Amino acid sequence: MPVKRKWPVPSDIEIAYEAELYPIEKVAEYIGVLEDELEFYGRYIAKVDYRSILKRLKSKPNGKLIVVTAITPTPLGEGKTTVAIGLGQALYERGLKVINTLREPSKGVTFGIKGGATGGGYSQVLPMDKINLNFTGDIAAVEAAHNLCAAAIDASILHGNPLNIDLLRVEWPYCMDIEARALRQVVIGLGGRANGYPREARWVITVATETAAIHALTTGLKDLRERLGRAVVAYTYDGKPVTCEDLGVAGAMTALLVDALKPNLVQSTEGHPVLVHGFPFANIAHGTNSVIADLVALKLADYVITETGFGSDCGFIKFCDIVCRQVPEIKPDCAVIVCTIRALKEHGGAFTLRPGEPYEKVKKAAESENL
Amino acid sequence: MPVKRKWPVPSDIEIAYEAELYPIEKVAEYIGVLEDELEFYGRYIAKVDYRSILKRLKSKPNGKLIVVTAITPTPLGEGKTTVAIGLGQALYERGLKVINTLREPSKGVTFGIKGGATGGGYSQVLPMDKINLNFTGDIAAVEAAHNLCAAAIDASILHGNPLNIDLLRVEWPYCMDIEARALRQVVIGLGGRANGYPREARWVITVATETAAIHALTTGLKDLRERLGRAVVAYTYDGKPVTCEDLGVAGAMTALLVDALKPNLVQSTEGHPVLVHGFPFANIAHGTNSVIADLVALKLADYVITETGFGSDCGFIKFCDIVCRQVPEIKPDCAVIVCTIRALKEHGGAFTLRPGEPYEKVKKAAESENL
Amino acid sequence: MPVKRKWPVPSDIEIAYEAELYPIEKVAEYIGVLEDELEFYGRYIAKVDYRSILKRLKSKPNGKLIVVTAITPTPLGEGKTTVAIGLGQALYERGLKVINTLREPSKGVTFGIKGGATGGGYSQVLPMDKINLNFTGDIAAVEAAHNLCAAAIDASILHGNPLNIDLLRVEWPYCMDIEARALRQVVIGLGGRANGYPREARWVITVATETAAIHALTTGLKDLRERLGRAVVAYTYDGKPVTCEDLGVAGAMTALLVDALKPNLVQSTEGHPVLVHGFPFANIAHGTNSVIADLVALKLADYVITETGFGSDCGFIKFCDIVCRQVPEIKPDCAVIVCTIRALKEHGGAFTLRPGEPYEKVKKAAESENL
Amino acid sequence: MPVKRKWPVPSDIEIAYEAELYPIEKVAEYIGVLEDELEFYGRYIAKVDYRSILKRLKSKPNGKLIVVTAITPTPLGEGKTTVAIGLGQALYERGLKVINTLREPSKGVTFGIKGGATGGGYSQVLPMDKINLNFTGDIAAVEAAHNLCAAAIDASILHGNPLNIDLLRVEWPYCMDIEARALRQVVIGLGGRANGYPREARWVITVATETAAIHALTTGLKDLRERLGRAVVAYTYDGKPVTCEDLGVAGAMTALLVDALKPNLVQSTEGHPVLVHGFPFANIAHGTNSVIADLVALKLADYVITETGFGSDCGFIKFCDIVCRQVPEIKPDCAVIVCTIRALKEHGGAFTLRPGEPYEKVKKAAESENL
Repeated sequence: MPVKRKWPVPSDIEIAYEAELYPIEKVAEYIGVLEDELEFYGRYIAKVDYRSILKRLKSKPNGKLIVVTAITPTPLGEGKTTVAIGLGQALYERGLKVINTLREPSKGVTFGIKGGATGGGYSQVLPMDKINLNFTGDIAAVEAAHNLCAAAIDASILHGNPLNIDLLRVEWPYCMDIEARALRQVVIGLGGRANGYPREARWVITVATETAAIHALTTGLKDLRERLGRAVVAYTYDGKPVTCEDLGVAGAMTALLVDALKPNLVQSTEGHPVLVHGFPFANIAHGTNSVIADLVALKLADYVITETGFGSDCGFIKFCDIVCRQVPEIKPDCAVIVCTIRALKEHGGAFTLRPGEPYEKVKKAAESENL
Repeated sequence: MPVKRKWPVPSDIEIAYEAELYPIEKVAEYIGVLEDELEFYGRYIAKVDYRSILKRLKSKPNGKLIVVTAITPTPLGEGKTTVAIGLGQALYERGLKVINTLREPSKGVTFGIKGGATGGGYSQVLPMDKINLNFTGDIAAVEAAHNLCAAAIDASILHGNPLNIDLLRVEWPYCMDIEARALRQVVIGLGGRANGYPREARWVITVATETAAIHALTTGLKDLRERLGRAVVAYTYDGKPVTCEDLGVAGAMTALLVDALKPNLVQSTEGHPVLVHGFPFANIAHGTNSVIADLVALKLADYVITETGFGSDCGFIKFCDIVCRQVPEIKPDCAVIVCTIRALKEHGGAFTLRPGEPYEKVKKAAESENL
Repeated sequence: MPVKRKWPVPSDIEIAYEAELYPIEKVAEYIGVLEDELEFYGRYIAKVDYRSILKRLKSKPNGKLIVVTAITPTPLGEGKTTVAIGLGQALYERGLKVINTLREPSKGVTFGIKGGATGGGYSQVLPMDKINLNFTGDIAAVEAAHNLCAAAIDASILHGNPLNIDLLRVEWPYCMDIEARALRQVVIGLGGRANGYPREARWVITVATETAAIHALTTGLKDLRERLGRAVVAYTYDGKPVTCEDLGVAGAMTALLVDALKPNLVQSTEGHPVLVHGFPFANIAHGTNSVIADLVALKLADYVITETGFGSDCGFIKFCDIVCRQVPEIKPDCAVIVCTIRALKEHGGAFTLRPGEPYEKVKKAAESENL
Repeated sequence: MPVKRKWPVPSDIEIAYEAELYPIEKVAEYIGVLEDELEFYGRYIAKVDYRSILKRLKSKPNGKLIVVTAITPTPLGEGKTTVAIGLGQALYERGLKVINTLREPSKGVTFGIKGGATGGGYSQVLPMDKINLNFTGDIAAVEAAHNLCAAAIDASILHGNPLNIDLLRVEWPYCMDIEARALRQVVIGLGGRANGYPREARWVITVATETAAIHALTTGLKDLRERLGRAVVAYTYDGKPVTCEDLGVAGAMTALLVDALKPNLVQSTEGHPVLVHGFPFANIAHGTNSVIADLVALKLADYVITETGFGSDCGFIKFCDIVCRQVPEIKPDCAVIVCTIRALKEHGGAFTLRPGEPYEKVKKAAESENL
């Protein structure tokens, strides 16, 4: 087991750094991934060849899907990720073949107030630092694909605007995986003809882009190419939609995403397999890890534990309405609802926590409610 | 040998796709890199642990450094990369221990007119598609680090401007590894206090950033941390410089670049080792691959072939004045000057090629000069 | 009488152009304005020396003040101005000493859909074209004074910002007496240090400025100087107000407004005296003609008829709450409420008129309601 | 004589304020302007009915035209205006029928470093304060006409852009008669469809507009209408010019300028007639007072003294090449070249004065050169 338990429990980061991880091929072996189906990213991370696995295990029945959700969370979080990983670890210790599936953390969030998103205590996913920073480059690839399209829109407008794009109706933002409030509302294309036509534009965080949503929803390269092609990026002066396909960039976007479609295999603090893949925000997209990771996990394991963003009324419903409806193989066999006494008290009016409040106030409220 | 020669010579891309590459550990073995010193990125790419290698071979004398440069190139290029790789392949076929070092290609350039930058014909570096697209994420990591600092500048200005930054003297641009002319001149921070203070800003291509130059010049993590800390990002209302250190982001930037410092090992079409690492533009920075790649190569091989950007009057002089002066271990033992008859004719006035001219005209001129 | 009545009644503009106006000194004579108290602007317009008149007639009791207001108007207007002028003409024909006071029309409105604002039919104020266009330059003077201050704000920020003005809290817009929607939201100060610090700014129509409101509320030059001096134009980074006085422009603004304080004397289509002076918008300011014109008229005439903008619930209440409260000499002796059957029907739901609707539709509705 | 001479000579402003001006009708009488041909703007300013005068005196031979110019001036000015007025006063004292013609001062310049432009000492034009501020509203009228067109361009682009105007090729600036450096480079049309299409725009000082140049060059209303109609304001996406006529605003612009075409009659400190009319900048336009004022003066007087902007190599040549070529009746009979010893010394290198230098330095240099 990578991590030896101590008392008192050290901080999350101490636990993460003291872990002696299994080589990732050992983790892969436990769930029957062949060596040829692994692409290593260092010693403890590997992308898995989903096409080979899905083809090889086509006729094997799927495992059971356990979805972890929560009541409406407070700004302090409810602990869905930690519960989901802990549940996976428990089943794993009982000798069951179990995989957790999880979203990739956004640097914009990691460097923000919320911090990383790899669980806590003795229920973490490792290697924490790599997963929270550049990981295997999936977010960077989505960012590049998304911005390639954004730049193509402005280039098309500049070069005679053959698609007749209405400058007031460009709907596709630029993106960056960093919180940059100054980029929420900008004017681009200044400086004359060499640079382009001025227009109001905006940046969103990469994990909130449509490309990120498509990346998490797609079932494979061909489907990805088609979904990207259909994405509406702007409207013409006549009010007709303009797509990535019209712009001629859907192919290049797909090329940039080839590797990003492969799920990333890592391990928990107890060494059981976790697929960390896909990163759509739950507020504006569906907020669950990639469909491909779920499909692969359901073939490889008897029990798959996944998590839906925010409370059950948001993330869980989106999971059912969007993910399950599009991919019939994915349907929950069991649902776990995380519910802290702290949240019950807060929602009941015992104290008030609001996003953006000073940390000291939040901490004090959080501590007082333990009494 | 990964590639079997045919006649007539197929296109670059056919050669690249038909290659049967050696597993990268075999390439590593030829130059004595230990298995523990490899971090795989798939089967044919590995990052090498430069700290371990440089420590292990500290007392071994360096190999010979051969620098490939050229006369002033035409818009069609002079063929420095192809000559450099071909020279490496020739020495390799004679059984010599040789490594080529090379810059990583920018997607902004790959998707532009110029195209990829991995050589041509039977003197290519492979796997071409991965190297030209996301590769091992080095450029994405530099982009994230650079933009983290850019966003921190605007955040600092918004939150009371404790560093007294003059809004008219922010010198640090945002960046993107995509050619986006509409972002050359923009106004950011619109929309009121929630978003920030308006200012004129600009985007540059990631490989043209100061962070990219620092990444290629540094000799290790500690040095990187110090160089980033010293980088001037703005000036105060009193005209005093403001650095990354003042902003408090040098540490986070370094953390994002830990893996990006490790040179990337790949192979040529004949299977000899090539380190592709670092990507500073030659027009605004020094234009040679990373110092770390050169240092590692000089320890591992008897002959190291590197290349300097643009003509000898630009790139070679920068190499001597900037790189060699900062890192005394790097000094050319031999220089190769590539000089095509086409360029001599063009510079002599036989025909005229200008950047941005229609491809047909360039092609015709290029063909006519063969007569 | 300047206008001879015809049947059928010609168009407003025909009536206006065929009028043979009295020389303005004859109109002035009727209400006892001395020749020395007139400043001619052409033959049919004169500014009156309010200081001389108010001093000369100090002990004379004021005339009666009749305020014309209306029920909530439709987009077609209720006819307040026409009723007010008609009422003045009727009293004048009975030999009573009567003056109408009226706001000056904005070119922004004149060139817009609504058109001029000098009454209609045989109850117009003349010379219509001059009054509706440049008139005696009062609006231009207010515009110049207001923009002088706006430019001073940006100049102060550029030149070291000695007043510590928060760039996000400049409250004083630029202005123009022309409807220019493209200027409602702009970014100024681009182009580097030679031009200034970028900030979001906006233009309003001149008659909607605070300077226009002050011009209409003031009782004289000294009071004007003080009111302008108190006007808040921005806030410091510490949240403290910055005034025109702080900027050092209140004196120059006052100098620009010296002549604009003098009421403009013209005549109606029946040759009775009308003072057209002051132009605050009723939606954002108090919407009645200048206090100075009212004070002068109350001294010169036995009956003064004035008008309040929009419906009684807006303009009449503002008149009572703002104008009468500040200047006790001004208080209504009689109120006339204009109420068309058309408006009653429209408000009752018989048909619907909305601002911005095609003229044809409005016309049809207006005609149908006559049945 | 309005001004009594004292010793030592008081300041310019004391002289101006102590003057006891002639009623303007007395000044008009001296040059034979009929009372019907005067439109009073207060007691000391009148617009003259140029159409009546030019018709009435059609067959009278023109007076002699004396043009005052200078060698290249220093930043302190050469004194052209003072010399021109003094020359007029001298001829007037000898009993000759003489008129000076002069440009109207820009508030942008009056409130700037240079100050007013009505001469100095005992050779001033009065009433100085009125002339330097709002005067008879000519500049305000030109500003309104010019901006009406500018706003019409943006409105046309917003409402379906029927003229196919290329947003990057709008050549017609907005204007303001106030120095506002922050408006030199702006982005307008922000905020979405309600406000318009974003574009880079600029403000110029009103006296530097094409409308100001046209106002000063025109010979009458019909000619004005045609010149305005021909003015190019933008280019289409096909590179074809778009004119005021195409926009449908030339008529409204002309209507706004009807009164502004009438020359303004005032007097010098010795009471001789001066026509102050027209205000094109000499750096970007032709820099002389209005053609209409010159034509009227040449009919009314035996000697007309006019002045050309800047040095003879700029203003005088423009006068000959532009004004005289277009209006054959205007041709110099005599030229006076003002040439100070100060300027000769400065151009000869004895000391250096540069625009924008601190006043103290300029003053010191100016004083030292008197030695």
